[in-house]
Amino acid sequence: MSRHSDPSVTTESTASKNIDRLVRWADDFPTAGVRFADLTPVFADAVGLSSVIDELAVAGEGTDLVAGIDARGFLLGAGVALALGSGVLAMRKAGKLPPPVVSQRYELEYGAAELEIPEAIDVSGRRVLVVDDVLATGGTIAAAAELLRGRGAEIVGAAVVLEIAALGGRSRCEGYPVTCLKQV
Amino acid sequence: MSRHSDPSVTTESTASKNIDRLVRWADDFPTAGVRFADLTPVFADAVGLSSVIDELAVAGEGTDLVAGIDARGFLLGAGVALALGSGVLAMRKAGKLPPPVVSQRYELEYGAAELEIPEAIDVSGRRVLVVDDVLATGGTIAAAAELLRGRGAEIVGAAVVLEIAALGGRSRCEGYPVTCLKQV
Repeated sequence: MSRHSDPSVTTESTASKNIDRLVRWADDFPTAGVRFADLTPVFADAVGLSSVIDELAVAGEGTDLVAGIDARGFLLGAGVALALGSGVLAMRKAGKLPPPVVSQRYELEYGAAELEIPEAIDVSGRRVLVVDDVLATGGTIAAAAELLRGRGAEIVGAAVVLEIAALGGRSRCEGYPVTCLKQV
Repeated sequence: MSRHSDPSVTTESTASKNIDRLVRWADDFPTAGVRFADLTPVFADAVGLSSVIDELAVAGEGTDLVAGIDARGFLLGAGVALALGSGVLAMRKAGKLPPPVVSQRYELEYGAAELEIPEAIDVSGRRVLVVDDVLATGGTIAAAAELLRGRGAEIVGAAVVLEIAALGGRSRCEGYPVTCLKQV
């Protein structure tokens, strides 16, 4: 259902139909001019959740670890990990984990943020799929990939439910494919 | 492996052994005097994750919706939901969802917090399992149950990975069984 010809988008997929049916759009949230996609009703629906997880898992062939981004990526990451028979590594926002941690700073529209994982988790040589709900500017996913690569992991791909194509986030995801279930 | 005789604790379960093997304990985090259980390495381990999800799902027999509490409960909730063939309802911290929402305020050690769900999600008559990583004082799980009951849901149970028994949180979970995989 995309204007783009990206082969990773399955036209009229089951997940895409469930997203259309259940997503709750909100104008001017969290700030003026932003149109927010609340996917809560998609995940709360049994058919919606399973279709989304099934299609995200396709992007994870060959993966041995799923990285889920705090917080909505957690809802997807664990499901995708179970579908792939791997674990899920929670990429946490700063300050949530006791030290020692490994951090990756990234820029936001206003200010900056950090992702963290425990230093004790060895991702060296692991083949990781990064999972989040929405790809917007790409800053968060790029930071997750950079953190994991810096610790020796290979990024097999990134997988998201929605891609806001106009924000160009895909161009910041360098060296790995990005799968989205629906572009808007 | 509990000193208590609660039948909901499976002695020497696979999940309990994986928790012992992988949990990262941190003293004085997030504040002095608190001993924090970082379960990140348990969930990042394929065997750890699947054993935890399998055993939590046992608590959800007859459930038709899993409620996962922001943020670590999300890591578990989606997995349990998939195991049970249900959806996962994200119980969000205040301010993360666009209006209109339904909120439930609860007290913390210092101050208060709120859980929210979209008003548009109808939980009336649903049989809900509330899932989180740790049961401490019980305030968060009790608030989640109160919010959902206030919207007409039936709480089938609560399921957590770790229970800090000394904090007595179980006593605040009224009218439904609490399953934990390990008491400490």
